[in-house]
Amino acid sequence: MDFFKVLDIAQVLELRAEFGRVSIEEVFLEEALDRVLAREVRAPEDLPPFARSTVDGFAVRAASTFGAGEGNPACLTLVGGVGMAEVPRIRLGPGQAVRIATGAMLPEGADSVVMVEHAEVLDETSIEVFRSVAPGQNVIARGEDFAAGAVVAPGGRRLRPQDLGALAAFGRLRVTVFRRPVVGILSTGDEIVPATESPGPAQIRDVNRYSLAGLVRQAGCIPQPLGIVGDRFEALHAACREALAACDVLLLSGGSSVGTRDLTVEALQAFADSRILVHGIAISPGKPTILARVGDKAVWGLPGHVASAMIVFARIVRPFLLSLAGLAPEEEREYRLPARLDRNLASAQGRTDFVRVRLERRDGQWWAEPVLGKSGLIQTLVHSEGLVEIPAFCEGLERGAAVEVILF
Amino acid sequence: MDFFKVLDIAQVLELRAEFGRVSIEEVFLEEALDRVLAREVRAPEDLPPFARSTVDGFAVRAASTFGAGEGNPACLTLVGGVGMAEVPRIRLGPGQAVRIATGAMLPEGADSVVMVEHAEVLDETSIEVFRSVAPGQNVIARGEDFAAGAVVAPGGRRLRPQDLGALAAFGRLRVTVFRRPVVGILSTGDEIVPATESPGPAQIRDVNRYSLAGLVRQAGCIPQPLGIVGDRFEALHAACREALAACDVLLLSGGSSVGTRDLTVEALQAFADSRILVHGIAISPGKPTILARVGDKAVWGLPGHVASAMIVFARIVRPFLLSLAGLAPEEEREYRLPARLDRNLASAQGRTDFVRVRLERRDGQWWAEPVLGKSGLIQTLVHSEGLVEIPAFCEGLERGAAVEVILF
Repeated sequence: MDFFKVLDIAQVLELRAEFGRVSIEEVFLEEALDRVLAREVRAPEDLPPFARSTVDGFAVRAASTFGAGEGNPACLTLVGGVGMAEVPRIRLGPGQAVRIATGAMLPEGADSVVMVEHAEVLDETSIEVFRSVAPGQNVIARGEDFAAGAVVAPGGRRLRPQDLGALAAFGRLRVTVFRRPVVGILSTGDEIVPATESPGPAQIRDVNRYSLAGLVRQAGCIPQPLGIVGDRFEALHAACREALAACDVLLLSGGSSVGTRDLTVEALQAFADSRILVHGIAISPGKPTILARVGDKAVWGLPGHVASAMIVFARIVRPFLLSLAGLAPEEEREYRLPARLDRNLASAQGRTDFVRVRLERRDGQWWAEPVLGKSGLIQTLVHSEGLVEIPAFCEGLERGAAVEVILF
Repeated sequence: MDFFKVLDIAQVLELRAEFGRVSIEEVFLEEALDRVLAREVRAPEDLPPFARSTVDGFAVRAASTFGAGEGNPACLTLVGGVGMAEVPRIRLGPGQAVRIATGAMLPEGADSVVMVEHAEVLDETSIEVFRSVAPGQNVIARGEDFAAGAVVAPGGRRLRPQDLGALAAFGRLRVTVFRRPVVGILSTGDEIVPATESPGPAQIRDVNRYSLAGLVRQAGCIPQPLGIVGDRFEALHAACREALAACDVLLLSGGSSVGTRDLTVEALQAFADSRILVHGIAISPGKPTILARVGDKAVWGLPGHVASAMIVFARIVRPFLLSLAGLAPEEEREYRLPARLDRNLASAQGRTDFVRVRLERRDGQWWAEPVLGKSGLIQTLVHSEGLVEIPAFCEGLERGAAVEVILF
């Protein structure tokens, strides 16, 4: 067996470089929310393709209104109107005005629009303007939203509603995105029965299949539950082989006993092209985590304790999945919520602790109250809204300390 | 026409009480991520149903180890072992120990587990223990995760991965959730063409269909794009009638000109059982927003400007959808990210401003840099990561001011 490779979080995350990205596919824009764009999209043309009014009013040359005020209105000649979706035939000259609605196309010669509230129609051919406008005022110029050639969406971006809108504006109704990685979930352990069954005495239901599937989905990947395999070398090795043929990544979960962990390592090492990259991470909970590379695929051996498995997923596995899914590093933002700690917390040095916390709003700020309990208890996560990270060099935090909560 | 009802945000949000919730349905747990649970689920039994070891080691009575230390080990009689999924036959007495693996069932008479690292096997029938354990140590007691009758998930909760796990632990593989509201999206305006077409001069593509559909999906609802309708009373009224038969909520978008807005109001008032609840909101952007109740359904007239429509959706429409979707008010948490403002911002009093901002990490904190630009420009949202709310009574904020960013 390999030498025990206990790494810290940063060392583990660097191993993302060992793995590539999934292939690409084309999808309809309507299905592209949260998908990761594979290639930068640039504006093929100016948006909008013509100057548009942003208000109801009168298109003018701004110079015709200079000096106008409440007591000193500018008198302009009304030479027509332009309706929605209409290409104005008029070429507007100095001292002239054209009635225009919000969104309509500016006539040639006009450079701004006087709001209807700031003008008065005197008769069919003349208006008074009570406020001057600047060139460009109340107008969206041609190309002001995106000029031809501008980047509409960079490659590696996870598409948000506004990105879909911008792509639609250019008629890009099919986009090239990264395939969603398929993540196999294989539960291990002789004591585990499918959640569809009633466990006998000394047995428990398979929980990780559901909780991990939810996390996989939240990461933008496709969970592929693969059932349960007992603690036997041949069965585990065969199940891994099958899973690796069908999935981009494999999560094994269960087996917190040393014997079971050793078995997992052996089953993975039995592949010709395998390498154990991580065997233990300096975090709590979650130390007994295994990462192997089999061929070009990642296989994770997650801790059996349900809360440990979820925390390791959130802090370690997820960044690997995002990288595999093609997300650009600069798009991978994590916002942490500043809060104050609600009680003293001790922490062992030399490992990063993730403390589950419940959030409460008090005195105009968030208070993070640690949810204590063993990492085998799923209720500790059910009753939490986030995690507080206590760095490896820190011995603990005092009540009232400023912390940043990772929402979970 | 009704008197112009310009309300502030709080007044508008109170109108949620005018509308009910959608009906319920049953779904498989595998499809239940992000769904809103309709009815509280309580634990039908203790979880775990038996006491389990959380470590590899030796099940003992804690009292048998009291006083044990490195120099003064306790000597215990090894009376057997218990494997995974095995119901121990042994009844453990004082001074006795049983070999046990992580996750296995504690034998009767044992109340704690000595970690394998803190014991030494002397021969087949005796071990030395070098550290005392307390009753309950390294054990998850029966019912310690959830006692029978405890609330596993409250009604009105949006199910997270950990909630799915907890439900699976009890074999709850079908759950009763609220139906996902169907939200019709009808774009209006003579100048709008489907994004599938090449717009002629003075025409633009339908953007809101895509950006609003994305926002609807993010809110956990089902977007139902209904195409484009021109600025004519009969067509608009007929389209609304059809839409209302098929959807739980209707979003009309487009028509920023006063004429078009009036037309929308007229088309809605023409329904026998309709009432205009809102005609203008004291926010910017987004003032020209309409909310009508037709029968028991909400119809929104969103501003035509694309960024305005999205901001009104995020701040106003979305809370209505969450309420319709059955989300309990206490589950509707919004976390805002504290940041410092990167430049001075003026704001008109008497209305709430939502300023689009880009976030940048500098000097260990987030800086919010306003993205300026007209609300007709979608790039202002493409280049933003959030919104800063400037309250109605505030005249503006200075560079460096502490703000809270609504992530967008």
